[in-house]
Amino acid sequence: MILDKINFPKDLKSLSFDEMKILANEMRELIIKKVDTIGGHMGPNLGIVETTIAMHYVFNTPADKIIFDVSHQSYPHKILTGRKEGFLNPDLYLKYTGYTAPEESEYDLFKVGHTSTSISLAVGVAKARDLKCENYNVVALIGDGSLSGGEAFEGLDNAAALGSNIIIIVNDNDMSIAENYGGLYSNLKELRENKGKSENNFFKALGFEYFYIDEGNDVEKLIEGFKQVKDINKPTIVHIKTQKGKGLKLAEENREYFHWIMPKGLEDFGKTFSLPENYTDLTKEYILNEAKNDPSFMVVTAATPGVFGFDKEFRDKLQKQYMDVGIAEEHAIAMISAMAKSGARPIFAVMSSFIQRTYDQLSQDLALNNSPVTILVYWGGISDADATHLCSFDMSLMSNIPNINCLSPTNKEEYLAMLDYATKKSTTPTVIRVPNIPLIKTGVEDKTDYSKAKYDVTNNGKDVAIIGLGNFYKLGEMVYDELKNKGLNPTLINPKFVSKLDFETLDKIKENHKVVITLEDGILDGGFGQKIAGYLSKFGVKVLNYGATKEFTDRIPLDELYTKYRLKKELIVEDIINSMNLINV
Amino acid sequence: MILDKINFPKDLKSLSFDEMKILANEMRELIIKKVDTIGGHMGPNLGIVETTIAMHYVFNTPADKIIFDVSHQSYPHKILTGRKEGFLNPDLYLKYTGYTAPEESEYDLFKVGHTSTSISLAVGVAKARDLKCENYNVVALIGDGSLSGGEAFEGLDNAAALGSNIIIIVNDNDMSIAENYGGLYSNLKELRENKGKSENNFFKALGFEYFYIDEGNDVEKLIEGFKQVKDINKPTIVHIKTQKGKGLKLAEENREYFHWIMPKGLEDFGKTFSLPENYTDLTKEYILNEAKNDPSFMVVTAATPGVFGFDKEFRDKLQKQYMDVGIAEEHAIAMISAMAKSGARPIFAVMSSFIQRTYDQLSQDLALNNSPVTILVYWGGISDADATHLCSFDMSLMSNIPNINCLSPTNKEEYLAMLDYATKKSTTPTVIRVPNIPLIKTGVEDKTDYSKAKYDVTNNGKDVAIIGLGNFYKLGEMVYDELKNKGLNPTLINPKFVSKLDFETLDKIKENHKVVITLEDGILDGGFGQKIAGYLSKFGVKVLNYGATKEFTDRIPLDELYTKYRLKKELIVEDIINSMNLINV
Repeated sequence: MILDKINFPKDLKSLSFDEMKILANEMRELIIKKVDTIGGHMGPNLGIVETTIAMHYVFNTPADKIIFDVSHQSYPHKILTGRKEGFLNPDLYLKYTGYTAPEESEYDLFKVGHTSTSISLAVGVAKARDLKCENYNVVALIGDGSLSGGEAFEGLDNAAALGSNIIIIVNDNDMSIAENYGGLYSNLKELRENKGKSENNFFKALGFEYFYIDEGNDVEKLIEGFKQVKDINKPTIVHIKTQKGKGLKLAEENREYFHWIMPKGLEDFGKTFSLPENYTDLTKEYILNEAKNDPSFMVVTAATPGVFGFDKEFRDKLQKQYMDVGIAEEHAIAMISAMAKSGARPIFAVMSSFIQRTYDQLSQDLALNNSPVTILVYWGGISDADATHLCSFDMSLMSNIPNINCLSPTNKEEYLAMLDYATKKSTTPTVIRVPNIPLIKTGVEDKTDYSKAKYDVTNNGKDVAIIGLGNFYKLGEMVYDELKNKGLNPTLINPKFVSKLDFETLDKIKENHKVVITLEDGILDGGFGQKIAGYLSKFGVKVLNYGATKEFTDRIPLDELYTKYRLKKELIVEDIINSMNLINV
Repeated sequence: MILDKINFPKDLKSLSFDEMKILANEMRELIIKKVDTIGGHMGPNLGIVETTIAMHYVFNTPADKIIFDVSHQSYPHKILTGRKEGFLNPDLYLKYTGYTAPEESEYDLFKVGHTSTSISLAVGVAKARDLKCENYNVVALIGDGSLSGGEAFEGLDNAAALGSNIIIIVNDNDMSIAENYGGLYSNLKELRENKGKSENNFFKALGFEYFYIDEGNDVEKLIEGFKQVKDINKPTIVHIKTQKGKGLKLAEENREYFHWIMPKGLEDFGKTFSLPENYTDLTKEYILNEAKNDPSFMVVTAATPGVFGFDKEFRDKLQKQYMDVGIAEEHAIAMISAMAKSGARPIFAVMSSFIQRTYDQLSQDLALNNSPVTILVYWGGISDADATHLCSFDMSLMSNIPNINCLSPTNKEEYLAMLDYATKKSTTPTVIRVPNIPLIKTGVEDKTDYSKAKYDVTNNGKDVAIIGLGNFYKLGEMVYDELKNKGLNPTLINPKFVSKLDFETLDKIKENHKVVITLEDGILDGGFGQKIAGYLSKFGVKVLNYGATKEFTDRIPLDELYTKYRLKKELIVEDIINSMNLINV
């Protein structure tokens, strides 16, 4: 294997082009095997192998700096920068994260996982270099899909005026996660078709030096191109055309499916699985039905339709009642606010981690205008995810903005009632946190009016009250059962409302309860429980908040996190008993 | 007066061009007089008078929709849409807000005050129109300065692909609030110089139809141009060159000063006032000193240097150690994070309301990478501002993100010590909320280590503890004095740390205190006090949180808000006594 000789980028410098081509194939094989085994980003990494070899061949890393956008395409980079064992040895597959991570290697500058940040980061590195009168290349590698994000444009606009070395490699594979959408993509297409020589050129219009490389999976052509721009003294774009999924036919032909796959994604491709009833299907069914009945009903996503199961078949059914705006969450929020004000009925589906990209739009464009939109937040909750993709912040972010009614259902019937309320009756913005646990049915239609905060008191007891929000209502039930077994008659509450307090119920609680516990699947700071504590502590009621600590955890197993946060029934019961005893003393 | 005949846009249609020119002058006079009397946006409104007349002449509002970006340039629009009394009659000067407000008029579509939102909002209106098979023009009016904001680009990219009527008027006066910076502005300049016929065209590259009007303060030319695009069936840009401050020589020549002025801004122009010692001057002095000693020390702003007193003289002194990135807060945060990681020492100064534009960048680009930057937040606190510019959300937004150390000083010495810590010693991100109250001196150097949360216990008493944060420590002192007078010996605490709790001090407090009150100059939800309540309520300590309700207030006098929120010493003391009595019973 050529790879046997390669431990660090310097080892590349002695290879011939032919050897580099063999190396590329070896790396591809490792990536395919690893990703198919543990899951991960397949297409982006297969497409960028040659670029990565060429970058490390031409530039002198780590003195020269390479900044990866999203960094979901950094696997080849990891193989070449001292971490190949994480790809060669299946026992070490989990040793390295799927994103750049400075704690792993000096070749990784930033911990990155959200899109559209690389250009701004590169400008900062370049600016620091200039202030310190140092001399090295600063390279940002960004995919075409990431370019639609506002932060990327702010970065581009500023980078163009930097006046010194900054090289932005635009990896254009004509794909975001799903298809691209927007004027920029028409221009990229035109540039690809004219091999960079189009009359209209977005990058030149911004003032960049512009180079085009048509053979973005040809290591020789790439090296030639990169040599041209190395040590250049002005802001420069190198626009390269690559093949997403390169070298794996199935991935080349099914680019959306193979963007990110689960373990055994290759084997499972094309198979349909019969799943138990679930929120994904329930949502799709609800949407199709509503869309059929009302032409002004519309579904919006921002580049991740797959997360919600919105596959091509589903999207095609909706036709013009579906829009993927690309990576442009800010735009999505403002747009749906205006749609709702103009009499349409928009739903925006978004992954918890990415709603973070829109605080000001949620506040100003949406909440201040009180537009009756529906936002469905998926995957919200404590998880074993990478630090870059945690989904535990959404409630803290959204529930402290005025006018936004955040709801957290615990079962099918509640979810449907909330959907119905949000899309048909509400006159204000509604966020529904789609449950992140297996679907539970009650069989009884939920007729709640979700405009007014009203908790569901499942059992009206005394001394101890358990308030279990959304995903954690189930945990609340378990704590309830344990306490019952101990001879107590606790109150059990399903609050359903995240951002509004039900003062009437809380006022009753405070009369004959000594300890109130809150359970929420998210960080405690700024979250649900602290609002309860803020209210009840006025009256001297003991409140114990359970949820996640405000921290970035990184691929910590869920069970370990639950233990750490004491989110287990036996630990909670222990705390309650201790707390009660203290009172009795 | 021609204006006598004009109450609504339809009244314009019978005017001759000459009459419209006279009307423009009449409107200008009213604007100058009003703005100089009560303060407000001078330059933007003087520049847009003819455009506004022409828009309302050509388009059939309110059937056709005009969406104003920021809407700080909507005064002429208000004069022409039923609200001229608010400009003619000084007694009614405060009747209408300085921004578009749907509650005032059907001609105003959205409540807007932050920049870069109009294109996304317009896309939403247009999309709703198309879904409902309706037929009207959708016009967004956006200034060149607002175009650098990421949300505007996301909107542009999507608008270009809309495939139906959307008209974006780019009001190019070659100015943001201060000078523009970025590649886009080189292209706008090139387009102005070539009267729209430049080879490189940012808008055409995105796929827009493009029209240029050089005489953007000539109502006849504007009408001619707008008639060309009315009812057009594709995404269209009308790029118009206007003169900011048009018609007021001083404002034409001093565009930054006259962007937004205080009452008597005309009279006061050029005067220097000798002010008592203040945080603005203190900060500037600190910065100049540090910058001189360390070439890697750098100051960054995002379009509002005037808010921090960073005038031209100050900026010129810093030379390349100062950068205004334009309206691009997201970029600013990512950039300073990278600068700090690369060994530079950046300070970012920002107005509280605009830090909202950066949640995800604060979380991902900055906090996750734990970069030692300094962010100075100005104007944070409850205010009588417009609903669009409230500064009461910053602590709730920032203090729930891991790794960010938010500090809130109460006096000069603390502020200097925090600045010193943040810029020289800290290894993590620090936010300092610059006090929004007159400067107080202790005369004693503050030697606190701000890496570890340690509250300052000013008086160690019992029964009642008063925790007064930042701007409200003073109020805490007043409550303390009142309680002393009533024979109590309360504990008084200056917590200084917003985002971290001092558990050691809180654990002592819980031993011999029955009531703890927290005072914070911001919203309660997700804020400082709820964190305290979340901790102390575990032990059954009564905690009363004082701060603002989670709501959008709109130009409510401060005293009224303080009364409503019970932020007055006598009301707080009353609450404490009631709370104590309840305990004694």
